[in-house]
Amino acid sequence: MPFVRISLRKGKSPDYLSALADSIQRGLVDTFDVPENDCFQIIHQHDENELIFDRTYLAGPRSDDFVYISITIGRPRTAEMKAALYRRLADLLVQSPGLRPEDVMIVISTSTPEDWSFGDGIAQMTDPDWRLRALGGRQ
Amino acid sequence: MPFVRISLRKGKSPDYLSALADSIQRGLVDTFDVPENDCFQIIHQHDENELIFDRTYLAGPRSDDFVYISITIGRPRTAEMKAALYRRLADLLVQSPGLRPEDVMIVISTSTPEDWSFGDGIAQMTDPDWRLRALGGRQ
Amino acid sequence: MPFVRISLRKGKSPDYLSALADSIQRGLVDTFDVPENDCFQIIHQHDENELIFDRTYLAGPRSDDFVYISITIGRPRTAEMKAALYRRLADLLVQSPGLRPEDVMIVISTSTPEDWSFGDGIAQMTDPDWRLRALGGRQ
Repeated sequence: MPFVRISLRKGKSPDYLSALADSIQRGLVDTFDVPENDCFQIIHQHDENELIFDRTYLAGPRSDDFVYISITIGRPRTAEMKAALYRRLADLLVQSPGLRPEDVMIVISTSTPEDWSFGDGIAQMTDPDWRLRALGGRQ
Repeated sequence: MPFVRISLRKGKSPDYLSALADSIQRGLVDTFDVPENDCFQIIHQHDENELIFDRTYLAGPRSDDFVYISITIGRPRTAEMKAALYRRLADLLVQSPGLRPEDVMIVISTSTPEDWSFGDGIAQMTDPDWRLRALGGRQ
Repeated sequence: MPFVRISLRKGKSPDYLSALADSIQRGLVDTFDVPENDCFQIIHQHDENELIFDRTYLAGPRSDDFVYISITIGRPRTAEMKAALYRRLADLLVQSPGLRPEDVMIVISTSTPEDWSFGDGIAQMTDPDWRLRALGGRQ
């Protein structure tokens, strides 16, 4: 259910981008009760003058490796779960692809189950059994 | 009022992109009480490794033609209207540009009328007569 | 705290893009109680057929210089503050880079302080002293 939009500067290798996406999905699975295969992500790669960020506001110093991660979820998470996600994502992204924690910015948006259609013209998460179906798909 | 962000893989023709955008706007007009000319859309075309999606989570199997449609609206819609939109969009996109229903993923975000300025430095939808003005513009 | 996504047609100079981004940040500082250095923006440049907009719906006529500005904030603003932002942004963008007010479309999304991590794996805005820290960083 999460949909993730990842923005960074152009110039990283395909392996780097893949590691970045994998670690973000791992963090969501570990802390946000997201099934392994509930994975939907888009990467936007930008020229230097298209990705504008302050180097020190509330954290930092940020480097040219700065990554902005926008996460849309379909049901609420507690403040504790969000704090756990931030901590976990920073840890995982340090391990792979090797980001500095100062360069990981995350913003969460919350919508409702009825706001999501995963395909086939229906709102899968309004089915009371959707979690069973989601977990079934994991095998 | 809806603003639509459409994401898909690179490689489709201009005609395909135009048909995709037209069908999405048609679906919003048909089910979401949107004036015909209330049309604001952005298309993001991505390399294969920038558009990441599970092939079978809660729907599918998804193909390389997968399209992710993010719709921001300025006033609430009921769950019934949302379900009708998903159904209608799947039908229309099958007809043109020829998508499979499995490849149509939709996520809705809701804001408020005061969150929108369509230009001229004012919040048009906070004017009690905005609907009349919108419909007048349709002629 | 605001995160701004700016979308326009390809073809503008680096100076134009920089002026556009600067004026948007200035408007947020002037009307939304945003610290000067709380600046996070992404610019998306699009081919003609990727940026679709009606020329006259509720404002206009819009030209090829149309700019769509999506602003995500982390705490509520009043309708009056939003109206002031729209007015101020239109004025500033006319001055620099020289946009017409008809070409400035703005949509605001609101999340909560706990939805933001500016880096280091923590949710800075859940710290009761975060405003002091933010203003301290301005010097």
